[in-house]
Amino acid sequence: SHYMKLLKLLPFLILTANSVFSQNTDSVAIRNIYNKALEEGQTYQNLNYLCKKIGARLSGSANAEKAVAWTKKLMEGYGFDRVYLQEVMVPHWVRGNKEVAYILNGKTKISVPVASLGGTVSTSPKGIIAEIVEVQNFIELKALGEKGVKGKIVFFNRAFDSKPIETFISYGGAVDQRGRGAIEAAKLGAVAVVIRSMNHTLDDHPHTGAMRQDSTVVQIPAVAISTNGADLLSKILKSKPSSAIQFYVKENSHTLPDVLSYNVIGEIRGSEKPDEIITVGGHLDSWDLAEGAHDDGAGVMQTIEVLRIFKSMNYKPKRTIRAVMFMNEENGLKGGLKYAELALKNNENHIAAIESDEGGFTPRGFSFEAGPSVLNKVTTQWKPLLEQYGLRDINMGGSGSDIGPLKTTRDSIVLIGYKPDSQRYFDIHHSALDVFENVNKRELELGAASITSLVYLIDQHGL
Amino acid sequence: SHYMKLLKLLPFLILTANSVFSQNTDSVAIRNIYNKALEEGQTYQNLNYLCKKIGARLSGSANAEKAVAWTKKLMEGYGFDRVYLQEVMVPHWVRGNKEVAYILNGKTKISVPVASLGGTVSTSPKGIIAEIVEVQNFIELKALGEKGVKGKIVFFNRAFDSKPIETFISYGGAVDQRGRGAIEAAKLGAVAVVIRSMNHTLDDHPHTGAMRQDSTVVQIPAVAISTNGADLLSKILKSKPSSAIQFYVKENSHTLPDVLSYNVIGEIRGSEKPDEIITVGGHLDSWDLAEGAHDDGAGVMQTIEVLRIFKSMNYKPKRTIRAVMFMNEENGLKGGLKYAELALKNNENHIAAIESDEGGFTPRGFSFEAGPSVLNKVTTQWKPLLEQYGLRDINMGGSGSDIGPLKTTRDSIVLIGYKPDSQRYFDIHHSALDVFENVNKRELELGAASITSLVYLIDQHGL
Repeated sequence: SHYMKLLKLLPFLILTANSVFSQNTDSVAIRNIYNKALEEGQTYQNLNYLCKKIGARLSGSANAEKAVAWTKKLMEGYGFDRVYLQEVMVPHWVRGNKEVAYILNGKTKISVPVASLGGTVSTSPKGIIAEIVEVQNFIELKALGEKGVKGKIVFFNRAFDSKPIETFISYGGAVDQRGRGAIEAAKLGAVAVVIRSMNHTLDDHPHTGAMRQDSTVVQIPAVAISTNGADLLSKILKSKPSSAIQFYVKENSHTLPDVLSYNVIGEIRGSEKPDEIITVGGHLDSWDLAEGAHDDGAGVMQTIEVLRIFKSMNYKPKRTIRAVMFMNEENGLKGGLKYAELALKNNENHIAAIESDEGGFTPRGFSFEAGPSVLNKVTTQWKPLLEQYGLRDINMGGSGSDIGPLKTTRDSIVLIGYKPDSQRYFDIHHSALDVFENVNKRELELGAASITSLVYLIDQHGL
Repeated sequence: SHYMKLLKLLPFLILTANSVFSQNTDSVAIRNIYNKALEEGQTYQNLNYLCKKIGARLSGSANAEKAVAWTKKLMEGYGFDRVYLQEVMVPHWVRGNKEVAYILNGKTKISVPVASLGGTVSTSPKGIIAEIVEVQNFIELKALGEKGVKGKIVFFNRAFDSKPIETFISYGGAVDQRGRGAIEAAKLGAVAVVIRSMNHTLDDHPHTGAMRQDSTVVQIPAVAISTNGADLLSKILKSKPSSAIQFYVKENSHTLPDVLSYNVIGEIRGSEKPDEIITVGGHLDSWDLAEGAHDDGAGVMQTIEVLRIFKSMNYKPKRTIRAVMFMNEENGLKGGLKYAELALKNNENHIAAIESDEGGFTPRGFSFEAGPSVLNKVTTQWKPLLEQYGLRDINMGGSGSDIGPLKTTRDSIVLIGYKPDSQRYFDIHHSALDVFENVNKRELELGAASITSLVYLIDQHGL
């Protein structure tokens, strides 16, 4: 009978009704999250403080410690359940005086903008002057051999590929020059390396960043040159026999002993499953050439905003939500490693971690380090709630450097990267342009709301 | 038999194979379009010329005529099949000396940044001084009545709503104040209106824009005030009895006789169906406070780039592709109206028109004025080819002002708006901030490639 058919359908109908109810509740909650972020958000004013009252905050610097103290105080002021520090030893590299570099073309001396790479050794006090040889990659370098490289400066000039739509792909295709250029060149007897800056734009700003160390290879000075400077140098090198051109560089950056620093953590304790932890994070340290506004002031302020929005909505999460300001992402990852080490030691049950470290740009989606069943759940159940907010790119992919080590704590942990639009990121990345003025208020706030919404859904429904 | 089954399937298999082949061809062509735009695009350098060598180009101005001549020459240089002008009479409104305005709070005189709205009449040479009354909307205005308004300046201060994700919705919810504020206030005897600028951001830039005229109502001066100025004025008004505060404004903009101007048109003639026309357009005129970089220099340069990319790919379109630089979108729409008028008169068969007039920001998608079958075709067949380029928002919705009048030419014409990310648009819109420096090269180029790709698909497959 129809009656029996209905009875049979009942569990399904209840499930459907529950699901519709839950979708509606979620939909209202998410709208509320966006309203809180857009109408009374504090991400932008907090980022303003971090950038303008503190500024650059490389690991080991006095500013990094100021940022630790201030973010701790900020979260205490918001009344989170628990705010605490996690000790971690970090490297302490210091850029010295403003770097000087020029191309010597016969009697002509042409100044070019350079910046020491993080971790480099200094030149001699008088600087280095040597013949300079251009290569595009390690294959060309090795083809030159010791004969072509010894005693010279090596100029790595492979530009960003313009074709990929995501700029992180272009970055990934070029950054080996910055990371391993000095090591590979030193193996062949080079005296220094000059690396084309890691950006698409043609401009006059050198972009710094970390270089790797290899204890088996002698360390040589490494500087980034602006893209305009690189183009000029390359043009001059092509116009003359290379022996006619010399390059001069002077910088006196150096490494001091490791310093005690901190991850800064704020927490709202779960009301139902307090032992299940959802971590949201960004990194508090930044390069020293600007204010670390997009990289990663934006991410840490969005992270704090997640908890602040929950408090202001009077939302009591089922699970424990943690905002983590990681220290030392830029040149060591010591904070991320320490956080995972302690999570493992303390048997913490992290079900998910989200990192925002790709800038405070307009939201596009999230990238999941997880199995297909998680992605399927997110795509079928949550994406319909999120895509009206511009969160349409829900894909498998990388998450974030600082949360990566958490993989060691639990097989099934889901790591998630917040993905804002990537077009403008490398224009400012690691350069003097990474300042508050280059952050758009709404884009930043929408990012905070996007991350908060995903945390809300994970908290409500698990993963 | 299996054999017979296969035979029966054959037409289907051929269809499928064709479709797969076509998808592959399209996919390769689109990738090629993006490569052309990103690796050897000319949109950015052309926009640089338009902004820096010509600059602001309000209808009727000498600069507008320079822009007509230069874009014509540019397209001739690219060797398009036909480049021509279309005569159109346009209004000629001229901003006078820099506007002056201040709040008079007792003996304190506080300067605030204002800009005349396009089309406004001037104040008397000495300026206007009067009591000022704040309203949020026309309902509040009418509630004040003649008694509360007569002889006063009306201050429309309804801010952008922060909650909508698309900023054009916030604009749509506030712009009636700018459009009809002067008319509605004049009906009740006001002597001038001061309108809160049409932007989210709190800053010191007044944003101009068009105001409507009503020949049955006396014209009164109308100026936009910066958002910071509006907040300050509102705060002061709330702190005192309103009769204690006066406002002073002086501006001498005025309207001169209509001027002969032009739409500028470039064309590649179709190889198979030359009578079917696909129009791509933006508007060449811009407000006078800056360079019209995003509004709409970006759109016109992307439009030219569509044809340039086709030429550089050696792609011979089946249909006729037209790049149209419309004149006078900002304060009259005379160019758009003329283009449709002539299309109708000449019995032209426009199958589709695309407008780019929402800035040179990162691509999000397209908005279709079309029936569900068109949207279904685009969503199922073309979206899979486009979404890897970030074109995920394929929706029904508005297209563009200039192409709107083409609706009168053919029932089934499909009008399409190019939709870039909207977050930053109103920060710069109609203000001194709409300069070349605020355009990102890759975002602009990706927009050009996005539009070119859609034109390619329409040309290949019809609509």
